[in-house]
Amino acid sequence: MSKVMISGKEVATHNTRESCWIIVHGKVYDVTDFLDDHPGGSRIILKYAGKDATAEYDPIHPPDAITTHLPPEKHNPRAFSLGSVDPGTVQKVEVEVTDAEKQRLERVANRPSLSEILNLHDFEAIARMVMPEKAWAYYSSAAEDEITNRENHVAYHRIWWRPRILRDVTHVDWSTKILGHASKMPLYITATALGKLGHPDGELNLTKAAAKHGIIQMIPTLASCAFDELVDAAQPGQVQFLQLYVNQDREITKKFVQHAEKRGIKALFITVDAPQLGRREKDMRQKFEAEDPAEVTANKQEGKVDRMQGAARAISSFIDPSLDWKDIPWFQSITKMPLILKGVQCWEDALQAYDAGLAGVVLSNHGGRQLDFSRSGVEVLAEVVREVGARRSLSFPNDKFQLFVDGGVRRANDVLKAVALGATAVGVGRPFLYAFSSYGFEGVDHALNILTDEFEMNMRLIGARSLKEIVPEMVDASSLKSHIVPVPGDRLFDSNYESMQHARLREVKSKF
Amino acid sequence: MSKVMISGKEVATHNTRESCWIIVHGKVYDVTDFLDDHPGGSRIILKYAGKDATAEYDPIHPPDAITTHLPPEKHNPRAFSLGSVDPGTVQKVEVEVTDAEKQRLERVANRPSLSEILNLHDFEAIARMVMPEKAWAYYSSAAEDEITNRENHVAYHRIWWRPRILRDVTHVDWSTKILGHASKMPLYITATALGKLGHPDGELNLTKAAAKHGIIQMIPTLASCAFDELVDAAQPGQVQFLQLYVNQDREITKKFVQHAEKRGIKALFITVDAPQLGRREKDMRQKFEAEDPAEVTANKQEGKVDRMQGAARAISSFIDPSLDWKDIPWFQSITKMPLILKGVQCWEDALQAYDAGLAGVVLSNHGGRQLDFSRSGVEVLAEVVREVGARRSLSFPNDKFQLFVDGGVRRANDVLKAVALGATAVGVGRPFLYAFSSYGFEGVDHALNILTDEFEMNMRLIGARSLKEIVPEMVDASSLKSHIVPVPGDRLFDSNYESMQHARLREVKSKF
Amino acid sequence: MSKVMISGKEVATHNTRESCWIIVHGKVYDVTDFLDDHPGGSRIILKYAGKDATAEYDPIHPPDAITTHLPPEKHNPRAFSLGSVDPGTVQKVEVEVTDAEKQRLERVANRPSLSEILNLHDFEAIARMVMPEKAWAYYSSAAEDEITNRENHVAYHRIWWRPRILRDVTHVDWSTKILGHASKMPLYITATALGKLGHPDGELNLTKAAAKHGIIQMIPTLASCAFDELVDAAQPGQVQFLQLYVNQDREITKKFVQHAEKRGIKALFITVDAPQLGRREKDMRQKFEAEDPAEVTANKQEGKVDRMQGAARAISSFIDPSLDWKDIPWFQSITKMPLILKGVQCWEDALQAYDAGLAGVVLSNHGGRQLDFSRSGVEVLAEVVREVGARRSLSFPNDKFQLFVDGGVRRANDVLKAVALGATAVGVGRPFLYAFSSYGFEGVDHALNILTDEFEMNMRLIGARSLKEIVPEMVDASSLKSHIVPVPGDRLFDSNYESMQHARLREVKSKF
Amino acid sequence: MSKVMISGKEVATHNTRESCWIIVHGKVYDVTDFLDDHPGGSRIILKYAGKDATAEYDPIHPPDAITTHLPPEKHNPRAFSLGSVDPGTVQKVEVEVTDAEKQRLERVANRPSLSEILNLHDFEAIARMVMPEKAWAYYSSAAEDEITNRENHVAYHRIWWRPRILRDVTHVDWSTKILGHASKMPLYITATALGKLGHPDGELNLTKAAAKHGIIQMIPTLASCAFDELVDAAQPGQVQFLQLYVNQDREITKKFVQHAEKRGIKALFITVDAPQLGRREKDMRQKFEAEDPAEVTANKQEGKVDRMQGAARAISSFIDPSLDWKDIPWFQSITKMPLILKGVQCWEDALQAYDAGLAGVVLSNHGGRQLDFSRSGVEVLAEVVREVGARRSLSFPNDKFQLFVDGGVRRANDVLKAVALGATAVGVGRPFLYAFSSYGFEGVDHALNILTDEFEMNMRLIGARSLKEIVPEMVDASSLKSHIVPVPGDRLFDSNYESMQHARLREVKSKF
Repeated sequence: MSKVMISGKEVATHNTRESCWIIVHGKVYDVTDFLDDHPGGSRIILKYAGKDATAEYDPIHPPDAITTHLPPEKHNPRAFSLGSVDPGTVQKVEVEVTDAEKQRLERVANRPSLSEILNLHDFEAIARMVMPEKAWAYYSSAAEDEITNRENHVAYHRIWWRPRILRDVTHVDWSTKILGHASKMPLYITATALGKLGHPDGELNLTKAAAKHGIIQMIPTLASCAFDELVDAAQPGQVQFLQLYVNQDREITKKFVQHAEKRGIKALFITVDAPQLGRREKDMRQKFEAEDPAEVTANKQEGKVDRMQGAARAISSFIDPSLDWKDIPWFQSITKMPLILKGVQCWEDALQAYDAGLAGVVLSNHGGRQLDFSRSGVEVLAEVVREVGARRSLSFPNDKFQLFVDGGVRRANDVLKAVALGATAVGVGRPFLYAFSSYGFEGVDHALNILTDEFEMNMRLIGARSLKEIVPEMVDASSLKSHIVPVPGDRLFDSNYESMQHARLREVKSKF
Repeated sequence: MSKVMISGKEVATHNTRESCWIIVHGKVYDVTDFLDDHPGGSRIILKYAGKDATAEYDPIHPPDAITTHLPPEKHNPRAFSLGSVDPGTVQKVEVEVTDAEKQRLERVANRPSLSEILNLHDFEAIARMVMPEKAWAYYSSAAEDEITNRENHVAYHRIWWRPRILRDVTHVDWSTKILGHASKMPLYITATALGKLGHPDGELNLTKAAAKHGIIQMIPTLASCAFDELVDAAQPGQVQFLQLYVNQDREITKKFVQHAEKRGIKALFITVDAPQLGRREKDMRQKFEAEDPAEVTANKQEGKVDRMQGAARAISSFIDPSLDWKDIPWFQSITKMPLILKGVQCWEDALQAYDAGLAGVVLSNHGGRQLDFSRSGVEVLAEVVREVGARRSLSFPNDKFQLFVDGGVRRANDVLKAVALGATAVGVGRPFLYAFSSYGFEGVDHALNILTDEFEMNMRLIGARSLKEIVPEMVDASSLKSHIVPVPGDRLFDSNYESMQHARLREVKSKF
Repeated sequence: MSKVMISGKEVATHNTRESCWIIVHGKVYDVTDFLDDHPGGSRIILKYAGKDATAEYDPIHPPDAITTHLPPEKHNPRAFSLGSVDPGTVQKVEVEVTDAEKQRLERVANRPSLSEILNLHDFEAIARMVMPEKAWAYYSSAAEDEITNRENHVAYHRIWWRPRILRDVTHVDWSTKILGHASKMPLYITATALGKLGHPDGELNLTKAAAKHGIIQMIPTLASCAFDELVDAAQPGQVQFLQLYVNQDREITKKFVQHAEKRGIKALFITVDAPQLGRREKDMRQKFEAEDPAEVTANKQEGKVDRMQGAARAISSFIDPSLDWKDIPWFQSITKMPLILKGVQCWEDALQAYDAGLAGVVLSNHGGRQLDFSRSGVEVLAEVVREVGARRSLSFPNDKFQLFVDGGVRRANDVLKAVALGATAVGVGRPFLYAFSSYGFEGVDHALNILTDEFEMNMRLIGARSLKEIVPEMVDASSLKSHIVPVPGDRLFDSNYESMQHARLREVKSKF
Repeated sequence: MSKVMISGKEVATHNTRESCWIIVHGKVYDVTDFLDDHPGGSRIILKYAGKDATAEYDPIHPPDAITTHLPPEKHNPRAFSLGSVDPGTVQKVEVEVTDAEKQRLERVANRPSLSEILNLHDFEAIARMVMPEKAWAYYSSAAEDEITNRENHVAYHRIWWRPRILRDVTHVDWSTKILGHASKMPLYITATALGKLGHPDGELNLTKAAAKHGIIQMIPTLASCAFDELVDAAQPGQVQFLQLYVNQDREITKKFVQHAEKRGIKALFITVDAPQLGRREKDMRQKFEAEDPAEVTANKQEGKVDRMQGAARAISSFIDPSLDWKDIPWFQSITKMPLILKGVQCWEDALQAYDAGLAGVVLSNHGGRQLDFSRSGVEVLAEVVREVGARRSLSFPNDKFQLFVDGGVRRANDVLKAVALGATAVGVGRPFLYAFSSYGFEGVDHALNILTDEFEMNMRLIGARSLKEIVPEMVDASSLKSHIVPVPGDRLFDSNYESMQHARLREVKSKF
């Protein structure tokens, strides 16, 4: 089969809604009929009509997305399976390097050395400075007023240690078994989308770091890297899990799940907290600042659907809002992988999962990105442990049922609190994104080194030689459920109050 | 009846307290005898003595206010029912456009496009920048230290969701019935005064938007638009309610109520939290800055009543502080409309309304504009539901009794919390004022679009297909009643504490 | 008895520790032997040795202080009871008007008109700007970290109203009886020292305002004005109370109390929270900034007692720390005036006062000026009402026992909360000091006008026609006893969190 | 034995890892073989290879550290026990005085006079300005997010006084007996390491001040001064305690303990909260800023252990993480000194210490420097008193068991709260470090004078003549256990809220 080369010049003539060709990775695609089906809207495609869209395409789509969604006859519009574009003839899409981008690149060049990164907060601080705005907005944003997003972290601050002393802690061991698989830490890398927004290697950074540190990576449905690429990158024996967004077309889901099982995925985490993606307004606002609002408004007024609600909503429109408990037996019928529900937010649902014979639940609110004022996973954990424990004592048989938590973790100290309350392991997401967005694989590696140090120190300081010794009595979580908002301040009284002052130096201007 | 034209020149000679004529909408009125009865004080009238007062008159009075209050023979001072002023001869009141006003107009011109308005907070931010100071002060101000005003909003933050998963939420429906009338959302546009301060079309903006979105508008007694104008503007079948300030002259009230019933108003909301209007000091202070304080002081020292306490108090002096439970049967005798008390603030009064056979109560503190340290409606709701429920179970017969809440709502998320606790619907006021003050009808329309999006998303994310599925178990309101004020800070300790720092870039100045 | 005039020249030669004469109000005094007994230390006297000390003397001492403390033969050092100084010959003490003082006087001249003062907070804001630093420091300072000082105010913010509606509140009456005497408001002007620091007329401003508004003034032991001067200034029938610091020399106290009774004082408030005056560091620090710290240090190092702890400690060294319950019968034996303990801080002591047949207690922590972390009076009130009520129900006979509270009040709203919890009346101190310090008598008059407005409005809005209708059920004080200090903040997490932003204007610079 | 002088020139040739000599206090040491055993890492030694390291050595090591750790034959590398270095020939290590250091010295010169220091906070404020950065970082830093560090102080703010009145408090006495030894205050100077970082006299400042004020000093294992030097400096009869870090080599510990007992140490406080030293990131970060991060990173990448975790970790690597309850009998066998566990953090361990017949426990979290989110000592105290009291009532015989608390104390007010809850005495650390770091011995002396003033005043104001009268009923600690973190703020709502304003001056610019 000889391949016919299409000239860039010819492609360039197909630059309208009526005939729209684009180039991705050197191949030409006729997407005219696909325009209105594109989850991200037609507008972003039309911007590249007749041009090379690879740079825009890559961070948001797995490589095989276009071939999966387009019928084969559109893969090469002029002659089916004939050839590719002639690279020398392609019209370049000139990307102007703005001043803001230049400054960003300068900041990238001036990142501190990795050894100056002392904790997971540091990665976030650096990432915020060195990431492209769009990527930062997508990773950091959360639902509505972002209350739950922050609550996820501060909830840990309502749990305090009751450490034990005078125990020989020369040897401390924080390894565990997650769904039967060894993990060197009671945490796993949870699924987060669009890794290439932060770093060209995307989720591969995580695969490599997980291998090196003996922990488990959960591969996201919406990875920037192709699923198989991430599985291929695993070391022999390396355990990977899969996070699943269930497609409205169950056949697609079935194919994906069974393929995953065949490739050796060890557990399936079905996301149940996202029948629709949440309003992430920081992300939405960033979009407007990048785009031309006049045009957006015009579209809106013409009654066109607003597709501007951030990358996440665009890429997720296939997710099925009809997903129901009634679907669980079907999942059990198509795979032998353990099934875990990701996004359980009250004990009633955890108990139903237990009774349904599932392998576990992740108490999670999707990093605060879905329902604002959903409680933190670690708060829910307390009630779930109580209720599942009660059910267990009635001798229902689901002995392997495990509890996971995610959201808001920044320290091994946090992780161990969740363990004390009854979690098997904790999912960590954003901190690793920030780690590779600022330093690539080495960032994630260093983050895991920091956590290792923190685990060792905190195990010793709480007086636990193994995770089994971290019992509920080791924490005081009596304030965990408090949702206090102080009475609004008395501004007049407060501004009248003249703050006390310290003793001051005599003449020298203080540095403070 | 031929009409005699009065020349502006002649009007201009009547510019004293002894003989005071003013022009409103091209007609001449002799208000000399009315000066001391003017609820807003004589001073503001004398400012326009002999001149055209229309621009000042319009935003504060309904068109028919002057003819209602003045006897007919004063409607045309020179010859009763003879004629109007000759427009060409009227002395213009020159309104100097201040620098501040020019800057304001520039801000108006630079409003962001509507599609950049992502939530109801945004309207307020823009309104604050583009509204005249006087209007902003009147709309935004609240009683005394404005603690209750802010508490109304933050009380919602003490209520957290316990969402359910794996329910088929493809179709979600947040419509309801309010007093038997269909509403597409569990909210209504509550009554707020002086709409024309914010926009020339005043409350008409709300009437139109309510029609378009299938929700109910509550017409305020103190609307800037005439009552009939607002009823006339309604679409066929559009449901309107009426908010009532009860006049000391009950005949006026009776006439107004029966007229309203005849015009098709479907329910009467009697305001019971305003026997006297609250001190709204932000509004009062704005007045002083606009007026000449020396003159004010002089008046005060001469023993004259202080009429400067803001527009609200001026226009509300007719309200009857003697209103009593004993008046309720009288209301029941003059109208068949369902009666609802607006401004109930404890369960004892809600129960009394229930027992009196009323149709419902609005748990409200008047947007924090009356009694400071009155609790938020949503906090009171919890105790009212409990007590009314107990009464119901004793089989008292008031089955149609409904509970409403207003104050502090900014998100559909808030509204649904109130529904979960037992409210039929929630009144929203200021957000719609800010919406039309910044963008007119389109603003209110967009606000309702945003709420629609938020309702759909939040219904799905909490796992409720209809409002009936939003049961009390879906929220954790255990901290709702807490009124915590933290112990005052230790300023010396705090200023000694040196905050931790993140890793920093090497040489580049950070953007932060 | 002819009077001999002493020349200022001669006085000027007595300007040493060995022979120290000073002039006060035109009379010469030999204070050489008194230097070491001066409660305020010798240093401040030596500063005026040989000079006219009147300006410094006046605001801190009643006019008769010097004649009371000095034996008669020192009243005119050259010839006992012979004569006065010749005014023309007195060496002037030149007081340099500093730049800071000039700026202060400019601020005084630019005070806003009284009608712009909308609440009691406003007086404090203006007073802070127009008062001399020393006076501000003395009035505003409180003990140690000033936690209790601020707690006194914020404790009221933990009490919320449960107002009643539909009560005929045309006529509302907030008058009461305090210890049997009519008061137009449920408050009294409590005792505060050194009124002339803030205004030349000192406490006389309060006497006049109390008369005009029908309320009761409590005269302080440490008034700047002489006791008799304040009694003389009272209108016929005007009721005055007396606050008493008990002297180590009980005869002085007895004489003072019996003189007061004879002059018509109606009740004696014995201060029991000040066996020693508290550390008021803001006041102390102000002293150092005004004085020469090197000299102070030198004195300290020489082992001399540190007399620099502010005006209050200086003038109060006579107070007896041995005061004991055993002294109560003695007080009952020397006067028929009702006795009230001022400064009770727990129910145990209130009960003991009740059992001792006293007339009442003031639940007070001395405005936060004594023991830091003493609870607010209004918090203590709740427990005292409970315990005294229990005792009453056991039919102990002290039926006239009344409860008062002071500290932190800024609004009639606050006062009425204390009434709801069981207080007869509330003492108000600093706000009136700030009122006369910024506007003299007219300030206090205006402050009481504001309170009158606030009482009327709040009575109506809570639905009470008289104080008797303000029952405990009208408030929710369930959070009153909470002493919450939030967990210290996570500075790294907080600084990483990027705050959400509103929609913004397009090009115009915002005014905000 | 004649001594041979080694020339500095010769020393200078031994400046490599292969042959490394250094000079300390005029003596030459061959540390080549010791390089890899140095707890602080080899790098810091190599910096001084061939040079005089005294200035770097002194503040971190007791004088005898080098002779203790090096075998005698290394004490003079060229000829065992022959001689010293010839001072005139030593290569000077030039220490460049940086601009920052010059500014610091200027600040030192401009410290306020001691009499301007009004409280213990003031010392910290001055110390922060005048201490070398490294010393400040070491003293002030704490574990991880420093939450526990600040909690230690604010926990006291959740305890409020219930003071008693009308008690004769002419004479108040706050002396006590600590483990049978008289102390003029219910506090002791607790052990803190590396005193010479803050002042050349190091811990000697504390020994002298303790003697003068009749209180007890606890000597730290990691003192900068030699143990014997501190014992020698004690006055006759002066009581000293010893804090012990237990060495992995128990013989060293045994020798040290028995030597201490022989020298008259009265009690042994065994640190049990430091099996490993905590991450003190402020300290770690300071290191990086002082060093060359590139080099650090390089070392790290070569797999070398990171020795940069601050002075504390470096000097503490000998501490034994295997320390166990099983070791307690051994301690009881090697010494007759009372044994106290320092660092108990829950009642279970306190009870075990009680049952083991120990003399007491210090409820401490090591000043927040070990486990973050460990509770404050004063919070733990409440539960320990309850449980130990219950055990006592079962008549277990350990009658001498005493409770101590440390961490967060800044006022006598704080100390007395701990006493009220059941502590015998309170340990104070950092405040004294800051006192001598800013003013040497005189600073500590003044700090104790301030505390004396505060004790006297507070004893009187709470109505206690002796510590025995400070009973639990005198405090309200009902909020002590609350660990509240408020719900994260609503940034959009808050930024929309326009704060109320005070009345303003007319034209003058305010000073505020």
